[in-house]
Amino acid sequence: MQPAIPMVEIRRGDRLESQHCGHAVICDARGEIVAAWGDPELVIWPRSSCKMLQALPLVESGAADGLDDARLALACASHQGAAMHTEAVAGWLAEMELEESDLRCGSHEPHDRAARDALIRAGHAPGQVHNNCSGKHTGFLALARRLGGGPEYIEIDHPVQRAVRTTFEELTQTEGLGHAIDGCSAPNFATTLHGLARAMAAFATARPDGGVRAAAAARLVDAMARHPALVAGEGRACTELMRAAGGRAAFKTGAEGVYIAILPDLGFGVAVKIADGATRAAEAALAALLVRLEVLERDDPAVRARLGAVLRNWRGREVGEIRAAAGFA
Amino acid sequence: MQPAIPMVEIRRGDRLESQHCGHAVICDARGEIVAAWGDPELVIWPRSSCKMLQALPLVESGAADGLDDARLALACASHQGAAMHTEAVAGWLAEMELEESDLRCGSHEPHDRAARDALIRAGHAPGQVHNNCSGKHTGFLALARRLGGGPEYIEIDHPVQRAVRTTFEELTQTEGLGHAIDGCSAPNFATTLHGLARAMAAFATARPDGGVRAAAAARLVDAMARHPALVAGEGRACTELMRAAGGRAAFKTGAEGVYIAILPDLGFGVAVKIADGATRAAEAALAALLVRLEVLERDDPAVRARLGAVLRNWRGREVGEIRAAAGFA
Repeated sequence: MQPAIPMVEIRRGDRLESQHCGHAVICDARGEIVAAWGDPELVIWPRSSCKMLQALPLVESGAADGLDDARLALACASHQGAAMHTEAVAGWLAEMELEESDLRCGSHEPHDRAARDALIRAGHAPGQVHNNCSGKHTGFLALARRLGGGPEYIEIDHPVQRAVRTTFEELTQTEGLGHAIDGCSAPNFATTLHGLARAMAAFATARPDGGVRAAAAARLVDAMARHPALVAGEGRACTELMRAAGGRAAFKTGAEGVYIAILPDLGFGVAVKIADGATRAAEAALAALLVRLEVLERDDPAVRARLGAVLRNWRGREVGEIRAAAGFA
Repeated sequence: MQPAIPMVEIRRGDRLESQHCGHAVICDARGEIVAAWGDPELVIWPRSSCKMLQALPLVESGAADGLDDARLALACASHQGAAMHTEAVAGWLAEMELEESDLRCGSHEPHDRAARDALIRAGHAPGQVHNNCSGKHTGFLALARRLGGGPEYIEIDHPVQRAVRTTFEELTQTEGLGHAIDGCSAPNFATTLHGLARAMAAFATARPDGGVRAAAAARLVDAMARHPALVAGEGRACTELMRAAGGRAAFKTGAEGVYIAILPDLGFGVAVKIADGATRAAEAALAALLVRLEVLERDDPAVRARLGAVLRNWRGREVGEIRAAAGFA
């Protein structure tokens, strides 16, 4: 087991203030490691970084036939509960003649400032549609309609989760590493960082004419890349980085410092895990890898906001910088 | 230089999900190290953990003569902008015939939910009184009244900051390590973790009859310990841990994973720095050290909320645990 290596530094004044260590893997079309930092065989919880894997049975089963790209993007999203997200989820539920109460993701305050303030001004509590995973859960409900099973579609032995597990194990080529319960109550299956990157390489190399699974995977990547704002939201790293990539790549964050990239032009999959779980570091580390791979330029505003960014205080004064650690990417 | 050591683990299901490494020092009355983890000579930015050091010239100069304990607690606070905090700061400013615009801390949304929601419902932007440092800055203004100097009391060569620097260097017994600009625009002086713990031991051993400086230091510790809710706010670690200690100790958090403890019963000072800057880990590590030192019991709810805490998801399901790493404290 290799130790995590320094990846991201927070500097204040002329000194290092904090440092994030982590692990990363770049995989090619055959699932072989092109480059790795830290321990590629580290077993991780991929958290929300694997939402496109959780959405794959929805498409592969035919349950998504006729669904538009926007809904597929939402099924892969960790959205911030802006009106564009919640209205689309509510519309999808209504079309299936389902209620918000059919969701099992729980409620939390939306990260979108306007949506949050509107709820507070109206005196309304946030609902399950505001949960960042509500699109994924609506996708689970659509799949449950096809596969059957009871209303508790998040239980580990429900047909929906059995289908997710099978897909997950086939694409990561890891199995039996157990599962945990995610923030949204869905099972989250463990894999290695290599396994996660391998699955993302499979998405990166999937072509519409490559068979049922490949066509489904290609459709999800295309949906994410075409709808970057639905996958996260204004100002968020996934959205801004996908926009910068101009629809040629898909990126997805996961809680506790996980990040993936799907890079069709290269046929590569990338997986990052920051050991301490920090999102700011996962974003910076992914940006550094995208620059290394020449997917994005170092001076792209979406990159600069996460890597080499000047940190400002409450009065707008420059106080520090977030940057890649020496020797990483 | 010793590497940071594993201090705090986040577990999900039956696996380690994230891990925080850090440094800690416990110092005795003579400033000698009683116990240390990681590198005691690590140079750090103490951030808000040193607010009682920044408030010491206010008291020592006599500028705080006649000020009540509540205001002294606010001068040492990183408060969450609840009504109890902002009203007290506004009252103190008014008594000095000063305006909110005399502050130089900048504005941010209050962390207190009720105060935040009230602002949003009223359509008001947060003001400088809501800044978590507004009490410290009001203390600076009170000191400036005594020491003179212009309105820019946060400039490094202003009499207020020159007094803070002298006090800081005398108590930490470190000097010349530079300064940076803090989130609130005040200078933050660098010291070693040992230096920070040494200064806290000086506070811990200060007695009212020990001379001007000792009396001033004892008065600040007493003010913090008597007003735990003013130092942070309901639900916050500093407040809950100080309440649990029953007024016999003072604790203070700082940004980027810093935490200090002042332990008068033992005559000890404690300083913690989490290498990656995570607050959750600094809270857990400090709680672990307080249990080790028998200041608090492991089963105290204020401890259990930070160490050994069950992590729950948006639907209240148990998903993991935050706990001390094996071999730490």
